[in-house]
Amino acid sequence: MPDSTGFDVSPWGIGWSGWDPQRQARRESVFSLSNGHIGWRGTLDEGDPCEVPGAYLNGLFEEHPMPYAEDGYAYPEHGETLINAPDGKVIRLLVADEPLDIRQGRLEHHEQHLDFRSGTLRRELRWTSPAGDTVHVESTRLVSLAHRPVAAIDYRVTAVSGPLDLTVLSEIVADEPLPRVHPDDRVMAPLEHPLEPVEQFADTTRATLLLRTRRSGIGVAVAMDHVMEGADCSVDTEASEDVARTTVTTRLAAGDSIRLVKIVAHEWSDALTDAALRDRVQASVATATQLGWDGLAREQREYLDHFWDAADVVLEGDARLQQAVRFALFQVLQSAARTEVRSIPGKGLTGPGYEGHTFWDAEAFLLPVLTYTIPDAAAHALRWRHSTLDLARERAKQLHLAGAAFPWRTVSGRECSGYWPAGTVAFHINADIAVALLRHVRVTGDADFEREVALEILVETARLWVSLGHLGRDGAFHIDGITGPDEYSALVDDNTFTNLAARRNLRGAAEAARRHPDDARRLGVTDDELGAWESIADAMAVPIDEERGVHQQSAGFTDLERWDFESTSQDQYPLQDHFPYFDLYRKQVVKQADLVLALHFFHEEFSDDETARAFAYYEELTVRDSSLSASSQSVVAARVGHLDLAIEYLREAATIDLEDLRDDIDDGLHVAALAGVWTAVVSGLGGMRDGCRGVEFAPRLEAPLTRLAFGIRVGGCVLRVDVGMDATTYTLVDGRTLRIRHFGDDVDLEPGSPVRLATPPRSDSGPRPRQPEGRSPQEVRATWGD
Amino acid sequence: MPDSTGFDVSPWGIGWSGWDPQRQARRESVFSLSNGHIGWRGTLDEGDPCEVPGAYLNGLFEEHPMPYAEDGYAYPEHGETLINAPDGKVIRLLVADEPLDIRQGRLEHHEQHLDFRSGTLRRELRWTSPAGDTVHVESTRLVSLAHRPVAAIDYRVTAVSGPLDLTVLSEIVADEPLPRVHPDDRVMAPLEHPLEPVEQFADTTRATLLLRTRRSGIGVAVAMDHVMEGADCSVDTEASEDVARTTVTTRLAAGDSIRLVKIVAHEWSDALTDAALRDRVQASVATATQLGWDGLAREQREYLDHFWDAADVVLEGDARLQQAVRFALFQVLQSAARTEVRSIPGKGLTGPGYEGHTFWDAEAFLLPVLTYTIPDAAAHALRWRHSTLDLARERAKQLHLAGAAFPWRTVSGRECSGYWPAGTVAFHINADIAVALLRHVRVTGDADFEREVALEILVETARLWVSLGHLGRDGAFHIDGITGPDEYSALVDDNTFTNLAARRNLRGAAEAARRHPDDARRLGVTDDELGAWESIADAMAVPIDEERGVHQQSAGFTDLERWDFESTSQDQYPLQDHFPYFDLYRKQVVKQADLVLALHFFHEEFSDDETARAFAYYEELTVRDSSLSASSQSVVAARVGHLDLAIEYLREAATIDLEDLRDDIDDGLHVAALAGVWTAVVSGLGGMRDGCRGVEFAPRLEAPLTRLAFGIRVGGCVLRVDVGMDATTYTLVDGRTLRIRHFGDDVDLEPGSPVRLATPPRSDSGPRPRQPEGRSPQEVRATWGD
Repeated sequence: MPDSTGFDVSPWGIGWSGWDPQRQARRESVFSLSNGHIGWRGTLDEGDPCEVPGAYLNGLFEEHPMPYAEDGYAYPEHGETLINAPDGKVIRLLVADEPLDIRQGRLEHHEQHLDFRSGTLRRELRWTSPAGDTVHVESTRLVSLAHRPVAAIDYRVTAVSGPLDLTVLSEIVADEPLPRVHPDDRVMAPLEHPLEPVEQFADTTRATLLLRTRRSGIGVAVAMDHVMEGADCSVDTEASEDVARTTVTTRLAAGDSIRLVKIVAHEWSDALTDAALRDRVQASVATATQLGWDGLAREQREYLDHFWDAADVVLEGDARLQQAVRFALFQVLQSAARTEVRSIPGKGLTGPGYEGHTFWDAEAFLLPVLTYTIPDAAAHALRWRHSTLDLARERAKQLHLAGAAFPWRTVSGRECSGYWPAGTVAFHINADIAVALLRHVRVTGDADFEREVALEILVETARLWVSLGHLGRDGAFHIDGITGPDEYSALVDDNTFTNLAARRNLRGAAEAARRHPDDARRLGVTDDELGAWESIADAMAVPIDEERGVHQQSAGFTDLERWDFESTSQDQYPLQDHFPYFDLYRKQVVKQADLVLALHFFHEEFSDDETARAFAYYEELTVRDSSLSASSQSVVAARVGHLDLAIEYLREAATIDLEDLRDDIDDGLHVAALAGVWTAVVSGLGGMRDGCRGVEFAPRLEAPLTRLAFGIRVGGCVLRVDVGMDATTYTLVDGRTLRIRHFGDDVDLEPGSPVRLATPPRSDSGPRPRQPEGRSPQEVRATWGD
Repeated sequence: MPDSTGFDVSPWGIGWSGWDPQRQARRESVFSLSNGHIGWRGTLDEGDPCEVPGAYLNGLFEEHPMPYAEDGYAYPEHGETLINAPDGKVIRLLVADEPLDIRQGRLEHHEQHLDFRSGTLRRELRWTSPAGDTVHVESTRLVSLAHRPVAAIDYRVTAVSGPLDLTVLSEIVADEPLPRVHPDDRVMAPLEHPLEPVEQFADTTRATLLLRTRRSGIGVAVAMDHVMEGADCSVDTEASEDVARTTVTTRLAAGDSIRLVKIVAHEWSDALTDAALRDRVQASVATATQLGWDGLAREQREYLDHFWDAADVVLEGDARLQQAVRFALFQVLQSAARTEVRSIPGKGLTGPGYEGHTFWDAEAFLLPVLTYTIPDAAAHALRWRHSTLDLARERAKQLHLAGAAFPWRTVSGRECSGYWPAGTVAFHINADIAVALLRHVRVTGDADFEREVALEILVETARLWVSLGHLGRDGAFHIDGITGPDEYSALVDDNTFTNLAARRNLRGAAEAARRHPDDARRLGVTDDELGAWESIADAMAVPIDEERGVHQQSAGFTDLERWDFESTSQDQYPLQDHFPYFDLYRKQVVKQADLVLALHFFHEEFSDDETARAFAYYEELTVRDSSLSASSQSVVAARVGHLDLAIEYLREAATIDLEDLRDDIDDGLHVAALAGVWTAVVSGLGGMRDGCRGVEFAPRLEAPLTRLAFGIRVGGCVLRVDVGMDATTYTLVDGRTLRIRHFGDDVDLEPGSPVRLATPPRSDSGPRPRQPEGRSPQEVRATWGD
């Protein structure tokens, strides 16, 4: 049953009936299919009407100049923007010469449904043409999780009235327009027709288009093949520079059907020759055609069964939240499953938002989820960072820093940020990567990965921190003039989050180097250097407002003027659209969890009292103008005993995209925010903390939620945690033994022996923290929902 | 006699013999003529060869888009760039059909000489054409100080061999190209042909061109007339859209001459009709033609005699320095004499540098000189600011601030800064204006000016400060997140210079409002508001490093990491071209006097000991990558008793342009740096301090200087100060009585009774302050001179 969002509520999928031109772009985003390598937005088969066509290949970008009103040293000269790949999802239909267009004729039935278990987008429609001919169309799409280069469509048309002449045009369209991502013509010009045709091949049911980006020099090949069933038809295929087209014509009697299975394969590279690209893509399409639709769909289901068996989250007591949590997990899986040494963009492959750039979102928000649920995908994402290490070393050198400086936003690994105060100097990205590596090694126990991937990055980022900070007169190590997570602050000294992340980075680098001394030596690490990392980590400044007993977001933060929330109207949010940066930067106002993120990530650095005081303090200042905030606020709210608030933040996190709370999912989903939903559930309500002592839980529920169950992969084991109102059951599904902690007590788990443990009584958590006027999660949802 | 600079050394002018294509642009800048309203670069009469053609009309700009890689709230959308006005200084010569071009034929003699007393640029050359015909050409130019719209050329050709057919083409050229001021085509496109022809008039010896800028909508009319003497000739004038041309042909016997006097007048406005522009400019040209060359030259001389009588600076013991000081004063006069409610651009009207924008340079560096030497010009410059007050009020509103926020850089009064951390947030511009107003009122005693101009700006800027800062927990008033004078720091809290300037602004506003209660009431000023200004001024935070006993440039500055000067090579200066902003910002490194400027401007806020300690501390950090620094360092060096250092800084300030120390005067002179020369002499060696107690002097000289004499206008008087090695003579040249202070003692002066007072013995001033490696004034001159 749909609610005000327009989407129905069901436990294992999400659907939409009818057609609403106002919400089409949102639906295209929500119904995206992806395997992390290929992305297809949920556009209509017939191409029109369409808001954002959206077929993406991870890493297929074009270069463009970056304009500046006033230039500066080391400003990136070239930007990178994800472009539309040749789009193989287009299947147009002519019904007795009338093109199927749901804006014309009569649309009697129309629905799309994304199924989280089958990994397919199913569409059904019944349409009567202006001439009075009626067809029933069923199409099912998948982007294969099992076969990385492959996507497929099972397309069926039934003649309701008849006899009917039908023509099906199945296409690869190579020059779909990109939305205007920048006001400057110099930026846009190279993005207008970025692909230069190289070669085309066509043969009865098959075609291949081969093109190359003009500036970035990436070759791309897309091939298709087709299998027809159910009626006699004639088939022909042709290919021109920008389009390949298979034309199927048939005559159906009333009640008869034709089925067309379309197999599409993709290959792209800046290193392969044209011949290699062509041969590979044609081999992929042949293999997949061999498997057929049923084979592809079966393997898709198997892949997802394996995923859900370990990772499913059950949340009883709120059906919309249950659906939203599974939707979030499904989209996180889709964004990362098969990236295989490519980045995970901020919007996954669901839209052109953020120009297809990856940010710290990936390491700080997605990686925790991936490491615990799809560790292979996590490893790939981290291996991608490793593959860009030389670029990061170059960037550090350009900035006169040691080690490596990873980019704030990028496709290829080159810095593409055009606003350095919230780009280049957000150096925490480097520690975010390090922290993700350390977690991944700790949770998976993968020593090879540590040696091959983690160690080198840890060493180079540790060196960065040494060169970035300095030992002050007070004996503390200070990192000045950088920007932390909160984008309403910039160029601050001693950002607590950054300093604690750098501390972990430095210590983790030292520990990894000690575990792998030969590899460390090869990287030039000396004992002196190791010792310096450890003593710098120990000396790291952590600014505290002694008078208030509150940790400072950065040195001096709590002395700044408090933002005048009382005089700020709700339509002045997000503040950055209505106030100049400098005014935001110099006042106590927080866009997104920063010190609170430190409370969450680096919990061992704060006592319970410090956590509670700091959370209460920063709640009053946090306006949540970022999608990356609610999940961390949820986690810390739960930790300090404010479960009602934790659930409200969870609800906000879970519905940011489904309810389009930020009115900005037309250009893609917020993948990191979706990952945060898992974190809010597992680390918030589930009370999971990871740290050097292993995995700890402190789960608590509160009405309306009555049951929470989730699973994690840790140390090669699969652990299921089933939380009720009064007790929690821990079950080791896979693995030999696992020691965990439940509310501070060690628990040893063995397979086949679930352990049920009572939830201790709650202590008084004091008054509920207050948010700025109008910015509590309920108020925000009331304002932003439509 | 010329030295290594190529310029000769003479007391009342500056000249150059020969021709050096490498240094032509520099010569064009140095030989600029201007009255502040019109500017003519020192290009050759015949137009070619030419580096930067350069004919400017103050305020004649074109608008263009401002590009940003990433946009932000309240970023200026449009920039403004001073364009080339129709250029009336071109006089081409054909010698028996051979165009005079000093690159061809044989140049037997060539010199240009700028005369500070006659206010003319004289040129003389003897040239033999490739065909063997020899001519002697003498041309003298002036841009009239007495007649604002008028410039003129006295052009004489003598046939050395003969008989010779000569053709003189006297032109107004309307479409001279502007140098590329920005890499972005969107910026440059509107600047390529900014003037649209409207109408042209031509008639025997006269012509007028009328054009209008395409975007900014400014109409401009330039007219010329000619008077010929000395030989029979035929004359004709024609005009097309982009050029007006008077053609004079004659035949001269050997030894005979022809003289052509060209009168040019200019009129421009965004408010006048085409007809009004045409009528005015034609009237101006007729009036000036009536006066003739001799009349114009005589009035020019009279104007300058009046100026030099009061303002001349005599400096004995260093002939180059004597010349440089008079050159500096002459160019300062030229930049400001007749602006009459227009701005004074950073490069005056001597070149296209800084796009013709005015900065704080005008109020902070030029205005002190103007107020004491040409008070009328000072008043005009301040009236221009007043005329832009509504734009400043709008800008403040856009920034959610009270009162008025003046632009960091602009032609029209609209903010044109494309880099807000060193633009919009350099709010000290507002106090710089206020301080200039307060000084002007104090020194001139002009109560009408205070009521009509100063009060309203003082009130609105005081309101700005109130809204910009906040009262902290410590009871002090803090101004956070702004940028002070030092451009190697940004977004700092409590910049001492800014806070002290704001304090003076607030107190000055309160005092002015109390003096003019009715006018203040009309501006909405209440007693409560007045009281708030005073108590905020009293509570203003002034950060001090207690441990070191040193004032901080901004809060926390002395705790930042010290720049690694030892590892910085001299070819890495200016640092901003070799290091990223963030790295400069977060370390102790100073581009230009900031705390030292506070020591100079707000001397009464610092004890002698504090001044000495602070100067020594900041000397070690100041790299002087700005032309605005040396003069203030000179003043404070003198104040703390390091006269040798003061003289070195004075020498650097005086030769920045003549020796082109910064390799950047091709696009115009540094007018504010030139003004600083006067300040270094008068406030440094002369020891003049201005403050509420009137004018004080503490003059001291040191070898090689043996005598310094200067004059100031104060309270309607003219005071001449004549400093010798052991004593100083004060003479009241004009005015009834004046009380001054000499080394702290009151002295009452009366006309006709010079007072000679001994210089007290020097106390020990301690060790000479050190500069960063390679950055002492001698080292910088050694590196930068060519």
